[in-house]
Amino acid sequence: MREVAIIGIGQTIVAEQWDKSIREIAGEALIAALKDAGREEVDGIYVGNMLSGILANQENLGALIVDWVGLRGVEAVKIEAACGSGAAAVRMGMMAVASGFMDCVLAMGVEKMSETPMAETTAALATAADADFEADEGVSFVGLNALIMRRYLYEYGWKHTDFGPFSINAHANAMHNPYARLHETFTQEEYNRARMIADPINLLDASPTGDGAAAVVLVPAETLDPNHRPLVTIAGSAAATDSIAVHARHDPLWLLAASESARKAYTQAGVSPAEIDFFELHDAFSIMSALSLEACGFADRGQGPRLGLDGDILLNGRIPIATQGGLKARGHPVGATGAYQIVEAVQQLRGEAGVNQVPGAKIGMAQNIGGSGSNIITHILRTN
Amino acid sequence: MREVAIIGIGQTIVAEQWDKSIREIAGEALIAALKDAGREEVDGIYVGNMLSGILANQENLGALIVDWVGLRGVEAVKIEAACGSGAAAVRMGMMAVASGFMDCVLAMGVEKMSETPMAETTAALATAADADFEADEGVSFVGLNALIMRRYLYEYGWKHTDFGPFSINAHANAMHNPYARLHETFTQEEYNRARMIADPINLLDASPTGDGAAAVVLVPAETLDPNHRPLVTIAGSAAATDSIAVHARHDPLWLLAASESARKAYTQAGVSPAEIDFFELHDAFSIMSALSLEACGFADRGQGPRLGLDGDILLNGRIPIATQGGLKARGHPVGATGAYQIVEAVQQLRGEAGVNQVPGAKIGMAQNIGGSGSNIITHILRTN
Repeated sequence: MREVAIIGIGQTIVAEQWDKSIREIAGEALIAALKDAGREEVDGIYVGNMLSGILANQENLGALIVDWVGLRGVEAVKIEAACGSGAAAVRMGMMAVASGFMDCVLAMGVEKMSETPMAETTAALATAADADFEADEGVSFVGLNALIMRRYLYEYGWKHTDFGPFSINAHANAMHNPYARLHETFTQEEYNRARMIADPINLLDASPTGDGAAAVVLVPAETLDPNHRPLVTIAGSAAATDSIAVHARHDPLWLLAASESARKAYTQAGVSPAEIDFFELHDAFSIMSALSLEACGFADRGQGPRLGLDGDILLNGRIPIATQGGLKARGHPVGATGAYQIVEAVQQLRGEAGVNQVPGAKIGMAQNIGGSGSNIITHILRTN
Repeated sequence: MREVAIIGIGQTIVAEQWDKSIREIAGEALIAALKDAGREEVDGIYVGNMLSGILANQENLGALIVDWVGLRGVEAVKIEAACGSGAAAVRMGMMAVASGFMDCVLAMGVEKMSETPMAETTAALATAADADFEADEGVSFVGLNALIMRRYLYEYGWKHTDFGPFSINAHANAMHNPYARLHETFTQEEYNRARMIADPINLLDASPTGDGAAAVVLVPAETLDPNHRPLVTIAGSAAATDSIAVHARHDPLWLLAASESARKAYTQAGVSPAEIDFFELHDAFSIMSALSLEACGFADRGQGPRLGLDGDILLNGRIPIATQGGLKARGHPVGATGAYQIVEAVQQLRGEAGVNQVPGAKIGMAQNIGGSGSNIITHILRTN
């Protein structure tokens, strides 16, 4: 099995891109990544996407995109794992390169969510839940997360206001990310008073969706010039699932698939949580930040919010998270989000994160969550 | 890169399965394949599917299925390449095993199409075409194929009736396949008089959709007992794309992606078309049979129908096709079809095809087409 390096990254702004179709958004990130890699050709592309069929009447997205960007002929498929689609596509690309089937792969995520009415988008997002036993009951995705957060507050005795630092940190970091959807900071006071969405989740607990795409170029590390710098490699990659329905879980407050995929990734990379320099986690809702930090070994069970309150999650803290704004402020174009996380991790490891640079970052982790914890992919990236 | 063997196969009947949901249909094929393989656990599953989001309000299909069958925790993603999704999933599974990331993978395809009104299904199928430049013009998928067939008749001078043998052969073979959707034979006379669907495509040129699932279990050949019989391995696997819109092709009568993926698969397997004992092709419409045979080197350009007229496609002919009924009579549950083709090829190579057995079959080819030729995956399987 060959070690896989990431030699190119590209992304678009996350926004309501009314003037661009899904192929144009995808093409922009793809071409940026190829340019960054100094490549013009690839052997295959893997497109993470969740909703193009439902929202844009467009399946066969792989063929659509290679055709559009002038790579007609190249193998191209779509990978779907709900909001985990982006990282799932990166993982597929990695396996294609590691196996020796391909020598250069472009893996990406893309989503276009702004053209449909909000009610339709909300219904489409609910397809990540169990259609027969959750969505059919009328519960939306934010509703499922609200139920989880409510239970968490009850079980562990935290106050809602204790989750404020997750949102405040994400918005602060997004201020310096030109690709972020939201450029606006908030105080704890403003967090406390934000409009309620699905009690106890308020507007500042929830990430905004949007249109966007992010892409990476993958090659075997062995084919690179020995002096290639900075060399970013995939040191760990693992995926795991949990029951699709939240109510079917033994413990709805424990992200089993996060824990399992992180455990495998740590083993592959030969590192422990203490050695991770930053963590691009899946803060679709602030409760997910707490649960991810716990499942991955950065906080004790039920103690996730402590890391926010103690400043451990800040750029100069023990385990910086959402270093470019996270889902909360960079935005959450669902099937693209996992690819954005990888792109941002590469920026950190290259030392190209500007004002948001985590000092001396050598090992970074990214975790992408599909469904309400049912399909989770964890990557550990490393630089020399 | 490790050689990959197929040690288990499973399938459901293709039918209107009103009493079963998509997870139940998928589960039936999956469990049958595991039982056939003598395995109870896998490292990951890849689910080929095109329409679950649009027709069943269910994405995150991977997590749904592993949860349902009692494999909760196992990595699981959905692979989409329009009607080529099934073979694309098998190819992903093969790469996961070949790379060394996984030692046992279940790859499958599933589709549930009967619960929605026909107009809705027709619109959903059109998402395989270019949404902005084909489907938005109001052309359906059968319409696109009718345009191709019309042009073919004009360019090469064939009569519509010359395509009859493709349909007649498929229906004859399906008579002995208990999983086939249609068990009814037709004469040339009946073919000629069949109801017109989209001129020149009539009812007997077009494959029926349906609900169904098919699955295979993949392991590294090196891990099997040296005396394992019959040993079926994947000798060639390749995918290629073409313009998603038919009107954008240099030659709409040449399946470039079929030709390219077949060429690569031949090279990998080290065989020529003459060495292929049977060919499970993508006869969604009879015109596609002719185009596939030409693109893969079994017929000269424009001469595909000749193989039907000369009996070359029969079970005892030069290049038997649709040996278990093909899409035309086994049925075409779109995202599952590619997996059915692989399952049927394994049946032939094991010598388990019963009345439909191709005598002495040692090397078989399966070709799955997504869109109107835009995304094509070709596999060559071999037995010892």
